[in-house]
Amino acid sequence: MAATTEIHVTFDCVNVDAQAAFWAQALGYVPHGAAGQYRSLVPPPGLTGPKFVLQQTGEPKPAGKNRFHLDLVVGDHLDAEVSRLIGLGATRLTPGTIDEAGTSWVVMADPEGNEFCLVVR
Amino acid sequence: MAATTEIHVTFDCVNVDAQAAFWAQALGYVPHGAAGQYRSLVPPPGLTGPKFVLQQTGEPKPAGKNRFHLDLVVGDHLDAEVSRLIGLGATRLTPGTIDEAGTSWVVMADPEGNEFCLVVR
Repeated sequence: MAATTEIHVTFDCVNVDAQAAFWAQALGYVPHGAAGQYRSLVPPPGLTGPKFVLQQTGEPKPAGKNRFHLDLVVGDHLDAEVSRLIGLGATRLTPGTIDEAGTSWVVMADPEGNEFCLVVR
Repeated sequence: MAATTEIHVTFDCVNVDAQAAFWAQALGYVPHGAAGQYRSLVPPPGLTGPKFVLQQTGEPKPAGKNRFHLDLVVGDHLDAEVSRLIGLGATRLTPGTIDEAGTSWVVMADPEGNEFCLVVR
């Protein structure tokens, strides 16, 4: 399989419409399709990024950290992004920034508790 | 945050080097960096796709399905890809294909049990 193969990121959701709305605003993505329990989001025309697929499973996130998370690379406006995402329904999980391996990040969670990081390069 | 923001996909691993080797071959990605418990993989020059970050945490995958998984879109060579990935250390979790919402897929797991799907559009 070559790297040109499309890679989609797929989340299980309790409330697929609420999660699709959150992630669209968080990423600047646009709704692409809806079928049954599925919703998909893609970058707006002219921009690139993996397609997001959200599926309603009804099961809440299990206890403990997800095995798998996303890092969203932000520029020098980390505090503004933290505030913006909290305004959309995210939660900040680390009070300060974590500095390691030449980068700094803040751990956040989406409205259903899925961890993600905002990373300053 | 605009969709031009980079999105990285990050996995927790028991054996970060083995997982990095598996995912590089699975995706056709190339090693990009290694620092402490981290390894990163990127598409080869000229191709696009999200950066992969693998981190050694030492904790095995919790019981149950991951909340979050990847779909890898393959062309019309699904059986060949299933066989190739099994040869790299993956496991096939569904004996047949699942057909739903206009697509077909096979559920697989990587060497540490993380589910992913091979999807025929």
